[in-house]
Amino acid sequence: MAAVAVRLFAVPGRGRKALSRGGAPTAKNGAGPTLFYLDDLEVGQRFVSGSHELDAAQIKAFAGQFDPQPFHLDEAAAENTMFGGLAASGWHTAAITMKLMVEGGAPLAGGLIGAGGELRWPRPTRPDDRLHVESEIIEIAPSRSRPERGMVTVRSETINQRGEVVQAMTAKLVVPRRPAAG
Amino acid sequence: MAAVAVRLFAVPGRGRKALSRGGAPTAKNGAGPTLFYLDDLEVGQRFVSGSHELDAAQIKAFAGQFDPQPFHLDEAAAENTMFGGLAASGWHTAAITMKLMVEGGAPLAGGLIGAGGELRWPRPTRPDDRLHVESEIIEIAPSRSRPERGMVTVRSETINQRGEVVQAMTAKLVVPRRPAAG
Repeated sequence: MAAVAVRLFAVPGRGRKALSRGGAPTAKNGAGPTLFYLDDLEVGQRFVSGSHELDAAQIKAFAGQFDPQPFHLDEAAAENTMFGGLAASGWHTAAITMKLMVEGGAPLAGGLIGAGGELRWPRPTRPDDRLHVESEIIEIAPSRSRPERGMVTVRSETINQRGEVVQAMTAKLVVPRRPAAG
Repeated sequence: MAAVAVRLFAVPGRGRKALSRGGAPTAKNGAGPTLFYLDDLEVGQRFVSGSHELDAAQIKAFAGQFDPQPFHLDEAAAENTMFGGLAASGWHTAAITMKLMVEGGAPLAGGLIGAGGELRWPRPTRPDDRLHVESEIIEIAPSRSRPERGMVTVRSETINQRGEVVQAMTAKLVVPRRPAAG
């Protein structure tokens, strides 16, 4: 099956010419962004999000609330840790990833409802990183017990301005089937 | 190997008498909470966190920043979704879980540094939920290439006031070996 890519937002500073618009379903109501129902998705389909600019203040604010460890809170204290400098909490990277996906990086009908998934943080996210998310549909499983929906497995990479992957996630999302016309 | 449990915080309203303090290593510096090095851990060891009280305002604040979907933002809009009412973003549940673990729910030397893991959200987290985290060491693997540390696999369940698991996570954490005395 051919990979189909939909570029939803410009990704500043990245020359990814391989991405092209294609395979988008017809919007039924003519307003708002095109949303993909289970029936519209195919394995290999790709989506690219807009981008998010991080800074030290955001890193410290998130960490202060949810992950108060020295390497996420204070530049000087972070120097002497495994990170060698201020780094974002992995959960902050995960939360930014979700924001980018909700804002258009994964335009699924019914919203992004995750049942769970797997996460890796191969390298730290740093202040002044500019992040975007590239997602690919890797499995589509219509539900046997719930004919109105199915489970879609999406692999999403969160990538910094140097093209380095800071988070790799494989998530299972609940996606509705397209309702009968009417 | 016998399961060893360390109760670090009282968990209000839960009658878990089975948890008892035991197997804690001697604190070397005599100050602050006892922290566990790789050498102090054993498979089956359990930790229980303090608790966190959620409310609708926290749910909406997190969602507004990181997961702006109707079922996380607005009670009325949430009624007509799969959630049937306001629910926290799974990433909010994950972030609160991290906070509870950092605040004492997983007292590991060197801090909680995750390389990645697996997450499931078997049921939604709701306003007024009171959450705590119960963690268990399920695997310990000293590093071959880095003798000063190892990788510890921890299974953590985030549990509400009704004893229901709202998040199940298996995470791989980097834990240092106890440094030579001196």
